[in-house]
Amino acid sequence: MERIGFIGLGAMGKPMTQNLMKAGFACNVFTRTRSKIEDVLAAGAVWCNSPKEVAQKSDVVITNLPDTPDVEHAVAGKDGILEGARAGTLIIDMSTISPVASKNLAIQAEARGCDFLDAPVSGGDIGAQKATLTIMVGGKPAAFDRALPIFRALGKTITLMGDSGAGQITKAANQILTAINIEAVAEALVFASKAGVDPAKVREALMGGAAYSRSLEFHGQRMIDHNFKPGFRMRLHRKDLDIIMETGKAYGVSLPVTAQVRELMSATLNAGQGDMDNSSFALLLEKLSNTQIK
Amino acid sequence: MERIGFIGLGAMGKPMTQNLMKAGFACNVFTRTRSKIEDVLAAGAVWCNSPKEVAQKSDVVITNLPDTPDVEHAVAGKDGILEGARAGTLIIDMSTISPVASKNLAIQAEARGCDFLDAPVSGGDIGAQKATLTIMVGGKPAAFDRALPIFRALGKTITLMGDSGAGQITKAANQILTAINIEAVAEALVFASKAGVDPAKVREALMGGAAYSRSLEFHGQRMIDHNFKPGFRMRLHRKDLDIIMETGKAYGVSLPVTAQVRELMSATLNAGQGDMDNSSFALLLEKLSNTQIK
Repeated sequence: MERIGFIGLGAMGKPMTQNLMKAGFACNVFTRTRSKIEDVLAAGAVWCNSPKEVAQKSDVVITNLPDTPDVEHAVAGKDGILEGARAGTLIIDMSTISPVASKNLAIQAEARGCDFLDAPVSGGDIGAQKATLTIMVGGKPAAFDRALPIFRALGKTITLMGDSGAGQITKAANQILTAINIEAVAEALVFASKAGVDPAKVREALMGGAAYSRSLEFHGQRMIDHNFKPGFRMRLHRKDLDIIMETGKAYGVSLPVTAQVRELMSATLNAGQGDMDNSSFALLLEKLSNTQIK
Repeated sequence: MERIGFIGLGAMGKPMTQNLMKAGFACNVFTRTRSKIEDVLAAGAVWCNSPKEVAQKSDVVITNLPDTPDVEHAVAGKDGILEGARAGTLIIDMSTISPVASKNLAIQAEARGCDFLDAPVSGGDIGAQKATLTIMVGGKPAAFDRALPIFRALGKTITLMGDSGAGQITKAANQILTAINIEAVAEALVFASKAGVDPAKVREALMGGAAYSRSLEFHGQRMIDHNFKPGFRMRLHRKDLDIIMETGKAYGVSLPVTAQVRELMSATLNAGQGDMDNSSFALLLEKLSNTQIK
C-alpha cells in the first residue's frame, strides 16, 4: 500500500486524512497549526516538520491548501515537496487553485520525474467527512489509475476530465454555477417577499419545476431561515471567482455575469460577511431593496 | 359541470383546451386565427366572435394570451369579457403578465361582481399537452376552490400563493431563476470548452453535485448539441424579464443580475435569436469569447 503524505489538514483536509487512515493508508502529515490535529497524530499519523520531510517519507503527497500561493510554496518553495520527492513520487493537489498555476506546477514536477494531478473537490466539509466528495481530475491517465484507490477512500464521483489543469477548470465551472445560482435564488426570494408573497411558499412551489436547482433547495432554505453559519464561506467563494476571472483572461473567455456576481460578493465582504455562508447573498439583496425576508 | 370559455388557443392554450374537453368540460372558444383550431372546433368546441360572446355563453372564462396589453384588452376592452360577464362569472388569467396589471384587472372584475384569479403556469408546451403544468394562483380562496377541478385537468402542482397578483409574482420568481440559471450554464460551458475541457464531460461531472440545476441538465444538453429549436422562445423570456423589471420598480426591489441578464437577452434578440430557445444564450457567450463549444 502506498505511503501517503498529507499537507493542509483544515476543515476539508483533516477528515480526508482520517478517511485515508480508516482505509488503511499510513499517513505522514504537515499542517500550519499542529495543535488542531493532535487527535489525528494520536491515531497514528506521523508528524513532519516540512512538506519536504513529508515527501521524503511518502510515495504519494496530497496538498489541500487555501489558495494558489500556498500550493506553489508547498510544492515548489523552500523545504517544499519537490525538494524531498524522488522520481516516481505522485503529487496530488486537491486544493482549488488557478488552472494556469496548476499546469505550471505539473510541468515543474514532471521535470523532476514526478507525476502531478490536479484533483479539486466539491461537496464541502460534510462530503469530506462522509467520503462522498466529487473529485475532478486533470493529468495523465496512468497517474489517475495509480491514484484511484486513494480517491475512492475520499469521494464518490471521480472523473478524469482531461490533461493537466482540466480538474481545476471543471471545479471553476462548478464555482461559476453555484455562485450565480445562489445569487439568483437571493434575487427571486427577496423579490417575492417584498412583493408580498411568502418566500417559503415560493421555494416550495418552484421546487418541482424548471427553476429547480440545488441552490434553490439548500441555499434557499438557509435564506428563508436567515441561517448564514458556514457551510462554504463567502470569502473562499470570492477567492474562487477571483481565480476564475484571471483564468478567463488567460484563455480569452468573457464572463459577464460571473464578473458581476464577483462584485456583489465583494460587497458582502465589505459588509463583514466574509465568514458567513455564501447564501448570505440574501442579506445584501435585502439591503439593496430595504427589506427583510425573515 | 361549469361551461368554460377559453380565449387564446396558441401553443399552450390549444392543448389546454383539448385537455379540458377530454375532462368533459363544454368549451366556448375565441382565438386570433380560427384556421389553427379547426380540429378543436370539429371535436365540439363552440366558436365565438369575441371575448364578450365567450363570456355570455360561459360560467368560467380562461385567458391565455402573449402579453399584458392582450389580456387587458380581452378582459376590459371593447367586446371584452367584462361586457359579456354576469355576477358570479369566474375569470382566470393563465397568461404571464404584469402582477400590477393583474391586480388592477381583479379590482375591475370584482366591481362587476365577478371573481378573478391570476394563474400563470410553468412547464411549457409539453406540460400543457401532458396536463402536467405547475399552476401558481393568486386570488380569493373560494374562487381557487371553485377553479380546482379545472386546474386538475390542466396541471399537477397547483398552489394558492396568496392574494390577487401572488400567482404572477411567483411566476416572475420562476422566470428570474430560469433566466439566470440558463445564462450561468452558458458561461460555465463556454468557459470550460475554450479552456480545453469537453463541455459534455463537465456537465456530466457536475450533474450529481452542488452545481446541479434543471437548466444544467436540460439547457446544458441543448447547448452541447447546439439544438436551439424552441422550447421557450428567447423573445418571450425577455418579455417576462421586462415585466419583472417594471414590477421590481413598482415594489421597490433591486434586481442587479436579472437586469444584466435581460440586457444579454436583448443582445440575443439583436442577433436574430428571438425565435430560438432560451438556451441560445450559449451562442451569445460563444461570440463574446470568439469560440464554439460544438
